[in-house]
Order: sequence, then structure tokens, then C-alpha cells
Amino acid sequence: MSLLERTIANIKELDQKVIEEIKAYQKRLTKPPGSLGVLEEISIRLGGITGQKCPDLRKKAVVVMAADHGVVAEGVSAFPAEVTRQMVDNFVHGGAAINVLSRHTGADVFIVDVGVAASLEHPRVLSHKIRPGTDNMAQGPAMTRSEAVEALEVGIRVADDLLGKGYRMLATGEMGIGNTTASSALVAAFLGVPAVEVTGRGTGINAAAVEHKAEVIDRALAVNRPDPNDPLDVLAKVGGLEIAALAGLILGTAAKRAPIVIDGFISSAAALVSSKLVPRSPDYMIASHCSAETAHRKLLQYMGLKPVLELEMRLGEGTGAVLAFPIIEAAVKIVEEMATFESAGVAGAND
Amino acid sequence: MSLLERTIANIKELDQKVIEEIKAYQKRLTKPPGSLGVLEEISIRLGGITGQKCPDLRKKAVVVMAADHGVVAEGVSAFPAEVTRQMVDNFVHGGAAINVLSRHTGADVFIVDVGVAASLEHPRVLSHKIRPGTDNMAQGPAMTRSEAVEALEVGIRVADDLLGKGYRMLATGEMGIGNTTASSALVAAFLGVPAVEVTGRGTGINAAAVEHKAEVIDRALAVNRPDPNDPLDVLAKVGGLEIAALAGLILGTAAKRAPIVIDGFISSAAALVSSKLVPRSPDYMIASHCSAETAHRKLLQYMGLKPVLELEMRLGEGTGAVLAFPIIEAAVKIVEEMATFESAGVAGAND
Repeated sequence: MSLLERTIANIKELDQKVIEEIKAYQKRLTKPPGSLGVLEEISIRLGGITGQKCPDLRKKAVVVMAADHGVVAEGVSAFPAEVTRQMVDNFVHGGAAINVLSRHTGADVFIVDVGVAASLEHPRVLSHKIRPGTDNMAQGPAMTRSEAVEALEVGIRVADDLLGKGYRMLATGEMGIGNTTASSALVAAFLGVPAVEVTGRGTGINAAAVEHKAEVIDRALAVNRPDPNDPLDVLAKVGGLEIAALAGLILGTAAKRAPIVIDGFISSAAALVSSKLVPRSPDYMIASHCSAETAHRKLLQYMGLKPVLELEMRLGEGTGAVLAFPIIEAAVKIVEEMATFESAGVAGAND
Repeated sequence: MSLLERTIANIKELDQKVIEEIKAYQKRLTKPPGSLGVLEEISIRLGGITGQKCPDLRKKAVVVMAADHGVVAEGVSAFPAEVTRQMVDNFVHGGAAINVLSRHTGADVFIVDVGVAASLEHPRVLSHKIRPGTDNMAQGPAMTRSEAVEALEVGIRVADDLLGKGYRMLATGEMGIGNTTASSALVAAFLGVPAVEVTGRGTGINAAAVEHKAEVIDRALAVNRPDPNDPLDVLAKVGGLEIAALAGLILGTAAKRAPIVIDGFISSAAALVSSKLVPRSPDYMIASHCSAETAHRKLLQYMGLKPVLELEMRLGEGTGAVLAFPIIEAAVKIVEEMATFESAGVAGAND
């Protein structure tokens, strides 16, 4: 079996026993039943994922997968392609939003070059370059099927490595000018809807440019005819290297029974790929936020995920994911530290 | 001038110069303009409140005002009245949700007895008891006008004291069995709507009990006939001691140009009282979350406040407010720590 196949086979059901245990325990804590809403749901899901009532998630990281996109030649982005490399430099020097927010929430940042179209030699960049950017999907497949598998396995290896080093919760992040185009193409292909329904403003293009972007995606779908029942086919033809690597990171994390926190639209497109490869993989995901990108809410609903935050963010990099970390950790601490009605001598609700 | 009058006179306009400065600076940071959504809005508001581009808000606290409600005699709550005192004990011993979440987010907790119907002698409880609970508003005024002013001034004094000790951001919290009834009564009176439109499940009563609760509120409004153009009249007749104290805390914080983070429905009812006393006071508020309590969203919209979190919480105590602290602090750090396009050598958007 390949690494990908082994990983897929290792993603098991959530631990129902621990889920029931936490549900019952939440009712004993000194608060009206259910009154902590989403915090209670998160604590229950984390228990099912980890098999522990109070998992210690303090050691945590965001993995920023970076790659370029050939489709940028079609003029789909507000920013020039070289910004991918420039932003990787910015990550390395700690000046990007993801650095600031990760420092703030106590998360480590790992930057992985899966396919940036420039030479990146820096000790702080993990080099797993498969190729210098994808081909232009409007003219043919973005990459080969074996390159897509390679990229998935990069993500799995990064997850294995970090979880092996003691990280207990991972988050998805990405950088790649053009990657909302690939994400919308994946969503359109898997959900079988016209591109216009799932194409948005990305980093900030205007309405006419959104229309053009949707046309480019429809052309890519027509040229490549990806088979929605064959997730690797879709991923290779209209996906991206960083998206494939994120899908692998998600699967690798789930296979090791750790929570994977999903960032915005691009990360959610990667999550969609994971969910097509392993339908139960969304059980291991926590959707950090609903972004301002058009199709994000629909995509989360499709996977049965409820976002923790709604802050109208649309930056990517993993920024929404790391911002959700304190809320996720709070959910565990409630179970760990709150008094029960019994221990505190507080009367319960009237009958 | 009384303390209340002086405080009201001291609530000035936001600092427009700093607001414009931050707006312009946000555009120079290495991210698509506007892509941090609500975080950008919060940074701008905090600048306007404090007059500083990057206010240091690390020293922060939640003030939990506690009091009892005579209207509990009408059977409006799922919990017996003695739970107010029992929960204050729980706060003092660190076992309640507000303690757990405050430790998690680095906030100090101050517990103030403004009117608990029991003797509370504990060095960790600030004793400012005005009376042991309000009277039953369904039969007459909850308190006198001068008691309402006294309670407001308790809140102002607590704000003055904490800000004097170096706290830079305060949050509202409360404990008082029966206080969603008083809150709904205040909202119904000020907004001129029937109680049924703004009455919810509180700590978890069923539909029939909600109907009864709304009838009790309508009776209280009919018996007392509060004048919606006289905020102190409404507060005294159908409010609560802890709600009045929170309204004072809000005004006292605004008068000192510090941000005040508003918790859930009850705190928002207190914020409504503040906004009726000082129409510009909501400028100083950050609405932490939209709770599951029926009228909360409507109430926030009425005051022009957008909640930071939407976690279906309905616990009160200040739990939503302290949970929003990390997001609020993140907003400042973005301005403080992110690189600009210029400093990082990143290309801006295409024309």
C-alpha cells in the first residue's frame, strides 16, 4: 500500500464512548445545560477525535503550504504572481498577518514550499517542491495525477512529522496567488455547479473580473472534463499543489486522531478533496471561520461543518484558523476546570 | 454636579484623527485591503476610543455585578433564587465558567455585590450592596429612582477604581437569577414593543414558561407605566440593581476613554440604559457576542453594534465578553506588528 492508501485506511470513526462521557459531564457543570453553545459542541468533537476527555492541545502549529498557479496567466488575480514568493519571504521574517496572529495565539508557523515558481532557499522554509507551479488549467491539466499524489503525500509527511514532534493540533494555511481560482474550480467540479455560483473576489478583484475568472474556470472544466467521482482526477486537473498538500495534511492529521483546524475558502476546498477521498474525514475538522469569499458558507454546509468565527476575513494564510485556537482551547478548559453543581454546592434547575 | 452627571458630561466624541490614521495605515499592511474584516474595524474603533494607534490592552478585567430580583416570586426562572448567592461562592472559589475563561484569556475577575438577597462576607467580593434584591416589579417599582442612581454610581466608581489601577479594557458580567426578566422588561419599555417579542428562555425555561414570563413583564409594564423618555424612570421601575451598576460601569469606562466589552443579553440591556442616558456611549462599546437569547440580535442592531462572536452561548457572567478578548487584542497586534508592503518588499495589487 502507498502512504496515501495507508493513511486513508487509518482514518477511523470518532470515539463514541468519550463523546457520550463528555455530553453527560457537560450537564453536571455549574451552568444551565447547553448554555455554552458551540464551546460544548467543540469539546465533544475534540473528545471524539482524540479519545480523551480533556486533550492537551497547547502545542499547536499552522502549516502554510505555498505554491504557484499557471492559471494566473489568464489574469484572474488582483496581485502579480511574484507575490507568492515575496509573501513567503514575509512569512520567514515574521511580518505577515499569520506570523502576528500565531505569536498572539501561541502557535508555531511552518512554511512549506510545495511548488513556488521561484528558487526559495531559506532554513525556515521546508522544501518539498514538486514542480515550480502548476500548468495553466485553462489549457490543460494543472498537473499530472502522480504529481497530485506526491503533493498529497507531502502533506501527510508533514502531519506525521509534526505530530511525531509532539504537536497536538494542526491548522491549515496557504499562500499562492491564483489559488481562489483553483479552489472555485474544485468546488464547481465536485458540486456540479456552474463556476459563477462559486467564484468570488479573491484578494479583491471587481465584478467584471469575477465574471472573467468564472469564465476561465468554466473553460478549464470544459477543457479537462474532470470526473467528480474520481477525486484525484479533479485535484490533478483543476487543483493546486498547495491545495493537494493541505488535503494530505488533513488526512495525515485525522489518521493520527488529532484535530485539524480548517482556515478559509482555499483550505476548505482542500478539505473538500479530503472529504471526497475519505467521507468521514470532516469529523476530524474544526471549521475555524466563515470567510467573506462567496462560496465559503455553501462549501462548509456541504461538508456539515459549522464555523467557529464569522469575522468577514478573506486573507487566507491560516489567519482565521489560528484566531480560532483560543476558542478551541477554551472549550477544553471548560471541561477540565469548571466546578460541578455537586462540588460547588449549587442548586440545579427547578423540575 | 453629581458623579453621574459629571460622568455623562465627560463622554466625548471618538478621536477622528486617530481613526483616519489607522484606516490609512491598514491599507499599507501586507494583505489585500479590507481582508481582515472585523479585525480591522475593531482596530479602528479602539483607536477612536483610546486616541492611540496601538493601545496596550493587556491589563484587563471583567466586572461581575451580582444582585437578586423580587420578580422571581412570579416563577419566571428555571433556577431558584438562592443560586445567585451560590454562584457568587462559585466565582469566589474559581469554579465557574467566567473564572475558567478569564484565566484562559488573561483577565482578572472582580465580583461586586450590588444587591444579593443574602449576607455575603468574603474578601474577594466587593461589597456595594444597595438593598438585598429588588422588589417584585409585577406589583410595583423594582426600586426607587435614587436607588437606581446609587447603583449606577457604584458602577462608575468601580470603573474609576479599576482604570485608576491600570486596567485598560473592562468587560461587563453579571449574576442574578431573574435578570433576563428585568432585561426583557427594559427592552420592551425602551423599544415600545410587547414583551412577547423580546422575551426568551433565559437559563432554559420551556415555551409555556416563556409565555408566562412575558405576561409577568407586560403586567410589570402596566403596573409601573415607565416613561421611555426618562431612562432613570425605566431603570428604577423595571430594571435591576446589577443592570444599573453595569450601565454605570459602561458610562464610567467610556468617560475615561477605555473600551468596554459588552457580554450577552443582560449586559446589552444595561448598555441600552447607558445609550439612553448618553446616545454616543455605544461608540465605546465592543459587542462581544450574539447570544442565543431571543431579542439579543435585535437589541445589538438597535444600538448599532456588531457582535464579534456568534457561539450560541447564553450563560452570561461575562463569559462571551472575556472570550472576545483575544480577538480584540489580535486586532491591535495586527496594526502593531505587521509589515507594510514597503518594509517587506511585497508588490501591491495590480491597477
